[in-house]
Amino acid sequence: MKNVLVGQSGGPTAVINSSLAGVYETAKACGAPHVYGMQYGIEGVLEGKIVDLDTVLCDKMDIELLKRTPSSFLGSCRHKLPDPTVDDRPYHTLFDLFARYDIGAVFYIGGNDSMDTIAKLSAYGKAVNSEIRFIGVPKTIDNDLMLTDHTPGYGSAAKYIATILKEVICDSSVYDIRSVTVAEIMGRHTGWLAAASSLATGPDCNGPDLILLPERTFNEDAFLERVAKLEKERHNVIIAVSEGVKNAEGVFLCDLVSTAGQLDAFGHKAILSGTSRYLADLIRVRLGCKTRAIEFSTLQRCASHLASRTDITEAYQVGGASVEAAVRGETAEMCAIKRLSDQPYRVETEMVDVTQVANFEKKVPDEWITADGMHVNENFERYARPLIQAELTPIYINGVPRHIHLD
Amino acid sequence: MKNVLVGQSGGPTAVINSSLAGVYETAKACGAPHVYGMQYGIEGVLEGKIVDLDTVLCDKMDIELLKRTPSSFLGSCRHKLPDPTVDDRPYHTLFDLFARYDIGAVFYIGGNDSMDTIAKLSAYGKAVNSEIRFIGVPKTIDNDLMLTDHTPGYGSAAKYIATILKEVICDSSVYDIRSVTVAEIMGRHTGWLAAASSLATGPDCNGPDLILLPERTFNEDAFLERVAKLEKERHNVIIAVSEGVKNAEGVFLCDLVSTAGQLDAFGHKAILSGTSRYLADLIRVRLGCKTRAIEFSTLQRCASHLASRTDITEAYQVGGASVEAAVRGETAEMCAIKRLSDQPYRVETEMVDVTQVANFEKKVPDEWITADGMHVNENFERYARPLIQAELTPIYINGVPRHIHLD
Repeated sequence: MKNVLVGQSGGPTAVINSSLAGVYETAKACGAPHVYGMQYGIEGVLEGKIVDLDTVLCDKMDIELLKRTPSSFLGSCRHKLPDPTVDDRPYHTLFDLFARYDIGAVFYIGGNDSMDTIAKLSAYGKAVNSEIRFIGVPKTIDNDLMLTDHTPGYGSAAKYIATILKEVICDSSVYDIRSVTVAEIMGRHTGWLAAASSLATGPDCNGPDLILLPERTFNEDAFLERVAKLEKERHNVIIAVSEGVKNAEGVFLCDLVSTAGQLDAFGHKAILSGTSRYLADLIRVRLGCKTRAIEFSTLQRCASHLASRTDITEAYQVGGASVEAAVRGETAEMCAIKRLSDQPYRVETEMVDVTQVANFEKKVPDEWITADGMHVNENFERYARPLIQAELTPIYINGVPRHIHLD
Repeated sequence: MKNVLVGQSGGPTAVINSSLAGVYETAKACGAPHVYGMQYGIEGVLEGKIVDLDTVLCDKMDIELLKRTPSSFLGSCRHKLPDPTVDDRPYHTLFDLFARYDIGAVFYIGGNDSMDTIAKLSAYGKAVNSEIRFIGVPKTIDNDLMLTDHTPGYGSAAKYIATILKEVICDSSVYDIRSVTVAEIMGRHTGWLAAASSLATGPDCNGPDLILLPERTFNEDAFLERVAKLEKERHNVIIAVSEGVKNAEGVFLCDLVSTAGQLDAFGHKAILSGTSRYLADLIRVRLGCKTRAIEFSTLQRCASHLASRTDITEAYQVGGASVEAAVRGETAEMCAIKRLSDQPYRVETEMVDVTQVANFEKKVPDEWITADGMHVNENFERYARPLIQAELTPIYINGVPRHIHLD
């Protein structure tokens, strides 16, 4: 067993460090003399930023803290490697470094862009007869990777969204006045996260009345008609909207706001990340309702204090299974999650061809979206409910969760 | 022992229902035949909206759920009773209702406006020789009530702010680029909540680099100078700002944004609740940094999933102690929290004159703010750290916290 190199790439999640823990502990258990970490992903490696993880993860407590620390412990990047037939210089740099550190396997924890990196590195490695294995470890709150039932990171984001929507709904009904609340949820291209708002629904909560997904074109008339009807029926109307919803012209609703000619206080064009604000304004102006816009913000990808234990466990498992695949000699693959049954929920890991994942995007299936295009049905519930089960309690010190950092 | 009437008023908190539980259980234990709840506060009572709590709180499990349910279980209002010498009609309505329901004591859980209601009702009661006792139960995330060491609701908001700021700081350092993050925190008139951001600080977190409080006038030059210096020293600068910060002209920074002439997509003046956005834009334009603005939003007052157990316990205690005071025959009072020691943290309840609380406002003491006016010192830490200690785990059902509602 040679040394191992592991990196994290793309946007953070609440559980990406659990996959790092899975890679690290499994590689050590398999006999890797050193497990190195890329600082700031492949971009950092190109600048020689490599750290020996044995020097920073000293004991089992550090591993427990790592699992509970949000964002990418090693730092991240959004760096796309060039086509090697156009520019192979970064590949020379990287493979020289791999040789110098006696690397036998490289693991890259990330989304579809990161799988592109793994696909390119493994193709280049094959071309130069390298024996290094390259494995992708899936991670994204967006849940948009192909060939895997779901992605680590999604379950925790979904649990956060469902939980805080429940709390916001409690808050929205406090006064004896009618109102419409529009909650903006991440997801520029797919509606997986917005759909997760439906998981707020239960005997104690009606959940969102409408969910707008990027998988469906926004129809202003149909939308306003539905809101007007709902507003007559109930005190508080709750709308969940994906930030990526577009109108029939293909324009993001948030861009409809920011192209309206506003300038900020300094004379620059204002950036109003405002799908929810747009809809709240639309409803207020057209229907005369009291409205409120709320953005669920970056917390969706970093709220480790509310992570799903199922998600944390699976994130660790795909890290570990990726190492085992490399030990078996596999390469150019991603470790996917295959669902065996919904009830009881059972999954296993399987290795899939990384080129079939890189740069593709999985959308919410048509048959999971209601006929009116403004909600999801029981198929989504059956799929998503198991992913948010159980909790991993933060280690609270002095009243706040303790984390671990690379300094 | 006659019947009891209890209401909730003003903005919600994560633990206001724990005070309701304290009033309810203590009143029952003291032998109150019925404990009635005001629906939507005194405004609802004026419309005859009264509920017998025995019909909705059926067993101990309901009490446990009540303690874990954010926002006001009974509904709330922002209704100011008129001066009875000007208009005594609402007082006739209320005291007629009190007589009809055989009410012996009225408890109102709220902030300084709610204490005004208790002060007016008890003054009117005294004038008409009523034997009904009127007691205020303190509640506000703003922590701005006089004569009490702190207010129930503040500890949980502070714990939420400190925890999510820690997570946002993890998130902000993920890429290898320099950036300035501005986090906007509630508090229109006082800086108690913004100051709580300092509780993120610990061996694993530097906490906010600057904290801007409404207690200090915003000085643009001094601020930019500090940010420019910090930005040279470290990768990520973190600034916590209270939404209530004003400049030397007495103008809210957020109003500087919205008076800059923006229109929303419908030609109306845009409402950009944007102290953080203003500062982020200012820094970006004047210093050329990459900036990010984040609003901590309404979750600050309703994130029960992250409540402080100390806060929940004290909220229950002030509810119970208020009932005991009424049983002793006291009236026109508020139940305050008196601190006996910081370390170990010990408190007791004491009854104070409600007229000394109503309509006043307690600010962060000068000697707790650093000389430059842009942070808080160890005095604040000593005061606030005990208030965020320990947790009360939500009861998770199907992956989300279970709540209880009045239907």
